[in-house]
Amino acid sequence: MMTDTMTNPPAAYQKLLRRMREVTCLKSTSCALEWDQDTYMPPQALAYRAEQLAYLRGRAHRLFAARTVGAWIAECEQQGLAPDSVEGANVREWRRQFEQATKVPAAFVEKLERVKALAHEAWRAARAQSKFELFRPHLAKIVALIRQKADYLGYEVSPYDALLEEYEPGARAAGIASLFADLRPAIVSVLQPALQKSAAVPDHWLPGAYPLAAQQLFNRRVAEAIGFDFAAGRIDTTTHPFCATLGAGDCRLTTRYNENDFTFSLFGVLHEAGHGLYEQGLPPEHFGRPAGAAVSLGIHESQSRLWENHVGRSRSFWEHWHPIACEYFPDLQALSVEQIHAGVNRVRLSFIRVEADQVSYDLHIMLRFALELKLVTGQLAVADVPGYWNEQFEQMSGLKVTKDADGCLQDVHWSLGGIGYFPTYTLGNLNAAQLMQRARQEHPSLNEELGRGQYQTLLTWLRQKVHQAGSRYRPQELMQRVTGEPTSIRAHLEHLREKLT
Amino acid sequence: MMTDTMTNPPAAYQKLLRRMREVTCLKSTSCALEWDQDTYMPPQALAYRAEQLAYLRGRAHRLFAARTVGAWIAECEQQGLAPDSVEGANVREWRRQFEQATKVPAAFVEKLERVKALAHEAWRAARAQSKFELFRPHLAKIVALIRQKADYLGYEVSPYDALLEEYEPGARAAGIASLFADLRPAIVSVLQPALQKSAAVPDHWLPGAYPLAAQQLFNRRVAEAIGFDFAAGRIDTTTHPFCATLGAGDCRLTTRYNENDFTFSLFGVLHEAGHGLYEQGLPPEHFGRPAGAAVSLGIHESQSRLWENHVGRSRSFWEHWHPIACEYFPDLQALSVEQIHAGVNRVRLSFIRVEADQVSYDLHIMLRFALELKLVTGQLAVADVPGYWNEQFEQMSGLKVTKDADGCLQDVHWSLGGIGYFPTYTLGNLNAAQLMQRARQEHPSLNEELGRGQYQTLLTWLRQKVHQAGSRYRPQELMQRVTGEPTSIRAHLEHLREKLT
Repeated sequence: MMTDTMTNPPAAYQKLLRRMREVTCLKSTSCALEWDQDTYMPPQALAYRAEQLAYLRGRAHRLFAARTVGAWIAECEQQGLAPDSVEGANVREWRRQFEQATKVPAAFVEKLERVKALAHEAWRAARAQSKFELFRPHLAKIVALIRQKADYLGYEVSPYDALLEEYEPGARAAGIASLFADLRPAIVSVLQPALQKSAAVPDHWLPGAYPLAAQQLFNRRVAEAIGFDFAAGRIDTTTHPFCATLGAGDCRLTTRYNENDFTFSLFGVLHEAGHGLYEQGLPPEHFGRPAGAAVSLGIHESQSRLWENHVGRSRSFWEHWHPIACEYFPDLQALSVEQIHAGVNRVRLSFIRVEADQVSYDLHIMLRFALELKLVTGQLAVADVPGYWNEQFEQMSGLKVTKDADGCLQDVHWSLGGIGYFPTYTLGNLNAAQLMQRARQEHPSLNEELGRGQYQTLLTWLRQKVHQAGSRYRPQELMQRVTGEPTSIRAHLEHLREKLT
Repeated sequence: MMTDTMTNPPAAYQKLLRRMREVTCLKSTSCALEWDQDTYMPPQALAYRAEQLAYLRGRAHRLFAARTVGAWIAECEQQGLAPDSVEGANVREWRRQFEQATKVPAAFVEKLERVKALAHEAWRAARAQSKFELFRPHLAKIVALIRQKADYLGYEVSPYDALLEEYEPGARAAGIASLFADLRPAIVSVLQPALQKSAAVPDHWLPGAYPLAAQQLFNRRVAEAIGFDFAAGRIDTTTHPFCATLGAGDCRLTTRYNENDFTFSLFGVLHEAGHGLYEQGLPPEHFGRPAGAAVSLGIHESQSRLWENHVGRSRSFWEHWHPIACEYFPDLQALSVEQIHAGVNRVRLSFIRVEADQVSYDLHIMLRFALELKLVTGQLAVADVPGYWNEQFEQMSGLKVTKDADGCLQDVHWSLGGIGYFPTYTLGNLNAAQLMQRARQEHPSLNEELGRGQYQTLLTWLRQKVHQAGSRYRPQELMQRVTGEPTSIRAHLEHLREKLT
């Protein structure tokens, strides 16, 4: 898919490659330091680690945002590179990233970083005490600065468009709003029958003990089985699971453990390994360049959701893995495949997004999207966030939020300046279902193979269709090419209806 | 000790501080990447990690070795800073390091790096197959280049002086040779009675099983007791134990485990924690500058040997720790304190330096020093290394080397270009004994405190006398100030005689 590199690219392109190699070296080193900070770093190292990161990130930024880089990009653009050639895609993405890096003044970026650092600390305290008031002044500053950032970046219709662009190139608020307008009633229509079906699942459906060491061995076996390469990656433990690439051939996953519930870490690993398989499947010869990089968060999330929900929460998965899991967790013999399948697919309304079931999850996202849109367009005051949240949440779920920690303080994103990020989670869900449906159409034997614990056909298909493409096509171009249509709600709803109602 | 910083240092000094902050950021980041490479990095990450390190190390070198840095140093030197002020010490050491960094041409450094990389690979293979011939051509190149390096660096008497200077500022080959000429017969005179005394210790003196997890808990408890701060450090597992500082407040130790012998990891931890206590005791306000950095390898090694051999291998140590160790290792109840003390102090001639006892250890070093000296002065051909080694080793120990893996191929140092390094191990042994003897003189209650497992007085003394000084004084100046004499063989021999004969 990515073989047709130019035999004689322009000199400016060669200069860009050299510069980007340096930028990638600095950025990947920062990722390595951040991974260490999240996994093993002792607490007193924090202050100096921040200095190291600020230095590396700052230098990477200056090297990338240099005027000469803009000139090289412009020179390449004048060469009329084929838009879906490796070079064309690289130059297109470098242009996009260059605009994002240079339109926002350095002094503003520094100010935002300082405000974010304080806001993040304030958010921790506010959430711990469930007091929105503690976070309110910080969120007000964040929103004001993020609106200013959108103005710097520029947009045609909504300032939210400028923010989305950072996470999901090409996405626009109007498009998301229209997609969500269709999705919401469709989900509501699935929700009632799904809740009824799940009512039979007991509160504590998973009895027994699941020692940490056994979970680690089992998770590793599953991750290896779906294709995660441990010669080029590993799994460690963190409070908040993540997947990070520290360099070529170096993808690190993390998960967390609950000794009463092995599915907690297992689905964490399946999710992060989904991200990891994407990272490990990107063309290594283009490492550190757009042609070798993930195209968007919405596509990245599709890979994690696909392995977590479409593979890991399928009946066929448990038909294969139940007897194996019983070797690691003898207590699991007390449950049938049906009981486990029902348990891991239980639909039950709850306050916390990260604990939400597969049906109501996107309702949580829609609430946040609507709220963010109002914030950045000035239709909602920061002081009114808890009231708006609680009202909308009750309307959507029937549950009354009694403390902000269970409501508008639950997510870390805003404290990190991440406004415009949430919609990519739902895009990920929709893309996952759409890709999985397409894979099944192209490989009628897929279900049968998955039931035998054989994941090679599915992984190879994803490699060829999604991973190998890197950022060669824009996200929606990629979805169109691979599935025949842009992101839509259809496959996701069919999947939910079929499995959960 | 280090409080008198100038109120108004020259502008050039301020510029040096700024530049060194950047250099330290790059170097400490390299250390973090190297730590990760040695502990957790997956194998396929190796090639790109090398690229990251080459970039960071290269940039640190260019920033440090810049002509403007030389001009700033010269400007500071003209100000007549007090030699033992913080500024004076910093400028003196920066000058020394600047000369080392600039006298050797960059092209030569790159060539040496390439030769070392290949030599290191060849050495691994040669040692595995015990075939010196495989390593010979590489060692020949290393020796030729190291001699050339000594010429670039310059020296007054012996090219070996230029090499020593990198590891032990101020040390000279003639001084080491004279020290060793006294040390050798003295050690030989201790060796026979020590061997006789140890003859009563059975081959397998430590019965029982020592599960890894229990060792980790026990080691941590001991390291905490002697004062290693786990809020600013940690212990991980590697094949070759080491201590590395990854940043301010971030000191990482490693050890290795043998489930049949807990003393293997314990003495590894005591040794590395000795290094770590030094690193954690350096003045944090001078982090990344000579005033906040260890002064030499011979002083560094004195700290590790002191905690490993003078504390950890003392009778009073085991009087305190034996009952506690039995909580972790029930099998240890079968042994008395006397048996453990005799076991961990057993003197027995062997081929391998890192397994050598406290008496014969320095004989291993003297052999290497004599051999290195002959190599760099052209008195010994590389082809004759095994012959020379085996002859000298048999003369020293009575043991016949039957394979090079047990002889001249056992150490990694030469393959890494580390000629001139070995003497610092013996300096460390001598300095450790001398410092410990002085501490006992100044604190007559020290032995009693150590017997109660109280290490605060000893650590505070080392902090005040050695750690806080950073590189303010040259190594021998420091020994003179703290112990009243330069490094001598007396205290070490008294210690060996008293404990082992």
